[in-house]
Amino acid sequence: MMYYVGIDLGGTNIKAGVVDGQGKILSETFCKTQAQRPYPDIVRDMAACVTQVIKNAKLTIKDIASVGIGIPGYADQKTGVVFCTNLDWHNVPLRDELMKYIDLPMAIDNDATVAGYAESIAGVSKDASSSVFLTLGTGVGSGIVINGRPWSGFHGIGSEVGHMTLALDGVSCTCGNNGCLERYTSATAIIRMARQACMTYADSAMMLRAEGDPNRINAKTVIDAAKAGDRAATEVFDEYCKYLAIIINNIIAFLDPEMIVLGGGVSHAGEFLLEKVRNKIPRYLLYKNMPYSEIRLASLGNEAGTIGAAMIGKLAAEDRRK
Amino acid sequence: MMYYVGIDLGGTNIKAGVVDGQGKILSETFCKTQAQRPYPDIVRDMAACVTQVIKNAKLTIKDIASVGIGIPGYADQKTGVVFCTNLDWHNVPLRDELMKYIDLPMAIDNDATVAGYAESIAGVSKDASSSVFLTLGTGVGSGIVINGRPWSGFHGIGSEVGHMTLALDGVSCTCGNNGCLERYTSATAIIRMARQACMTYADSAMMLRAEGDPNRINAKTVIDAAKAGDRAATEVFDEYCKYLAIIINNIIAFLDPEMIVLGGGVSHAGEFLLEKVRNKIPRYLLYKNMPYSEIRLASLGNEAGTIGAAMIGKLAAEDRRK
Repeated sequence: MMYYVGIDLGGTNIKAGVVDGQGKILSETFCKTQAQRPYPDIVRDMAACVTQVIKNAKLTIKDIASVGIGIPGYADQKTGVVFCTNLDWHNVPLRDELMKYIDLPMAIDNDATVAGYAESIAGVSKDASSSVFLTLGTGVGSGIVINGRPWSGFHGIGSEVGHMTLALDGVSCTCGNNGCLERYTSATAIIRMARQACMTYADSAMMLRAEGDPNRINAKTVIDAAKAGDRAATEVFDEYCKYLAIIINNIIAFLDPEMIVLGGGVSHAGEFLLEKVRNKIPRYLLYKNMPYSEIRLASLGNEAGTIGAAMIGKLAAEDRRK
Repeated sequence: MMYYVGIDLGGTNIKAGVVDGQGKILSETFCKTQAQRPYPDIVRDMAACVTQVIKNAKLTIKDIASVGIGIPGYADQKTGVVFCTNLDWHNVPLRDELMKYIDLPMAIDNDATVAGYAESIAGVSKDASSSVFLTLGTGVGSGIVINGRPWSGFHGIGSEVGHMTLALDGVSCTCGNNGCLERYTSATAIIRMARQACMTYADSAMMLRAEGDPNRINAKTVIDAAKAGDRAATEVFDEYCKYLAIIINNIIAFLDPEMIVLGGGVSHAGEFLLEKVRNKIPRYLLYKNMPYSEIRLASLGNEAGTIGAAMIGKLAAEDRRK
C-alpha cells in the first residue's frame, strides 16, 4: 500500500503529513516558516519535515508515491515555479528546489484549491463530484472541484473568487480594483461594517466586548454579540450574510456545483451562519423551482491543507502512470 | 463512419443538421417553430426535420449515432425534462417525446452551452481545452468547457453568467434581482445607455441614424455611430466595453479558462469591439504579470447551435459505450 505526503506551506508554519489513499492522516509534523528567510532555507526545512513525517509514520521513502504542496499563492503547473505574495516569493522554482532533496512525483497548487479538494476526498463534500469551497478569512479564497478533479485554471491563476467584482465602483480593494467580493464577504468586511455600526450604536455589546476600543473588534466579537441578540451586531451580521447569499447565488448561476462548502474563520460561527445564509439564498435564485447547490460547513478544519496537498500529489502520480 | 444529428430549437426556427465527427455540417434543414403550438406538435416537427436532414445527406438512420438538442432554457440531464421560458415550456418531457419518433442516444443542453462547445470542437477555441463562450445578445448567456467537456452545472442550471450580480443595488433586472451582469453587458444595455446619452447629446449621430426617434436606436446604431467617430456613441460603447472587460476579468479570476470567446449580436462589431475590450482588461487583472485567457471572436456564427447540439449527442453516445 502506497502513501502520500502533503505539505501545507503557510506564512507562519510549514506543516507536513503522511496521508493514505482515502485522505486519512497517519502522521504529522510542523516547523516555523520564518518567512523572512531566503527561500532555499525554507525549502530545506520543508524537506526535513517530509523526512521526519515519513519516519513518524514508521515508513520509508519507498512507501511514498508522491509529494503535494499547498501554497499561499499560485503555481505554474508545468514548471513548478510559484508566486506567494505573503512570503515575498516571486518566480521561486519550488519544485526544482525541493527535488534536490526528494525525488518523487510532485504537485503544487493554491492552498484554498487543495483544501477544497481535501473536503471532496475526505470531508463534507466527499460524495459530491462538483463543489466550490469558500475560505471566509482575512480575504476570501476558493477551491473548485469539477468532475472530481480540482480546477485552479488553465494558467493556475483561477479560483480567486475574492477578487471578482461584486459592486461596480464599490469599496476599494488592496488589489487596486473597486468592489471586490472579499470587501463584502471576508472577516475583514465584518470588522469594517461593525466599526462603522459602532459609530451609530456606541452602546452596542460589540463595544463592551472590545472594551470601548473599536479597533479591538474582530469577527468573533460581532458573531458572539449577534448570537447574544445585540441589535447592531445582528444588523451587521445579517448584512454580511446577505452579501454571502448573493455571492453564493453568483456561483450557482455560473457554475452550479453540487455543493458549496463554507470554510475559514467566519465559518466557525457554525449553524448560526449557515441558517441565516441558507434562508437568504432563495430570493436571489434565477430558477426558483429547481434544485440547487447544497450549502454545508467545512469539516476538516486545519487538516484540510495537508490532506488536500497529499491528494493533489496522488492525482499527479496517477496521471503520470496513465 | 458514423454521423450525428444536431437540433437547434429556437423561438422562431427549428434547425437540424447532420454533422460529422469533426463538427462539419453535411446537410441542414429548418422549419418554423410556431412556439404557441402545443409541445407535441413542435416535437413532431423536430422529428420530421431529423428525418429530412438525414435524407438530404443521403444517409439512413443506421448511419446516425446520436441526436443532440440545444434549447433556449435548461434541461434535467437525467430525465430529459426541459424548461424554456420563451416557449412557455415548463416540465416538458422532451427526450421521451422525441424518443417516440427516434430511438437513438439523446442529449439535451442549453443553447449557449452547446454553441460554446461547438466553438471548442470546430471553431475558434478548437485547440483550447478550457473556454468560456459569451453570447452578447438581448441577454447574456454563456457556455463553459473544462477539460474538453461542456459544463452546464450539476443540476443543469449553470452557465447563466448573465444573472450574476455585478452591481449591488444596481439596475433592476427582469429576474427580480438588481445589478445582474446582463443589465450592463447585453445589447439591451447598450441601447439603454445610448437612449440616456441622447437626452444629453440630442444632436448625436445616433439620433440621426434613428431618424430622431430614440426608440429606434439599436446596438448596431450605436456601434456604427461609434465607428464613425460620434462622441456620444463612442462614450456609450467605451462604457459598455469597460463593463465587458470587468466581467471578463471576473471570469479570469474565478475560472481562468484558456480562452474566452465573444459571440452573439454585439460580437458582430468585430475587431472594433475586441480591440477596445482587450485594451481595457489589463488594469483589472489581479496578477498583472501572468499570462491570462486569450480573448477571441466566435467563428461559427449561426451554425454553432446545430454543430454543438450534434457534438453533445456524440459525447453522450461515447459516454454510454464506456
